[in-house]
Amino acid sequence: MKKLTEAEIAEHLKAVPEWQIKNGVLSRTFSFTDFVASMRFVNGVAEAAEKANHHPDIDIRYNKVTLGLVTHDAGGITQSDFALAGESDEIV
Amino acid sequence: MKKLTEAEIAEHLKAVPEWQIKNGVLSRTFSFTDFVASMRFVNGVAEAAEKANHHPDIDIRYNKVTLGLVTHDAGGITQSDFALAGESDEIV
Repeated sequence: MKKLTEAEIAEHLKAVPEWQIKNGVLSRTFSFTDFVASMRFVNGVAEAAEKANHHPDIDIRYNKVTLGLVTHDAGGITQSDFALAGESDEIV
Repeated sequence: MKKLTEAEIAEHLKAVPEWQIKNGVLSRTFSFTDFVASMRFVNGVAEAAEKANHHPDIDIRYNKVTLGLVTHDAGGITQSDFALAGESDEIV
């Protein structure tokens, strides 16, 4: 899995417009009605992450969940990160 | 629920020695064998948190989970935080 160039990242971001690059990490904060709804989402993401064998950083703050995606082995953001971002958007 | 004094906090910490105060938050990082084990723990904590209606900050980093506990309404750490810390230790 090859690290994407800045131009490629900009192109991929068009498909997941709620996501942004923060400190070199593809990230999005999702808002829910409450903690239970947050956990439901996190478990959906966890299942997708296990299937992809690609695991986001997950920060749970009651009704808010922030996902952070980066491919450490590639030293940057790859197609795998955008794939899981897209899947996460569909789980909401 | 009243904010604990520093002396009270020091006393309570003796019962949960793996926890520490970091930036005013009662916190502990738990290590597991893998992401699935982390998620199993997080779901156990989430259930205890819902029952107590007291929700920790939860940061998942593959096989590591950091919990952060503080009682915002009380402006500090309370008995509720130590109660959930103790329960989390038993879920591991």
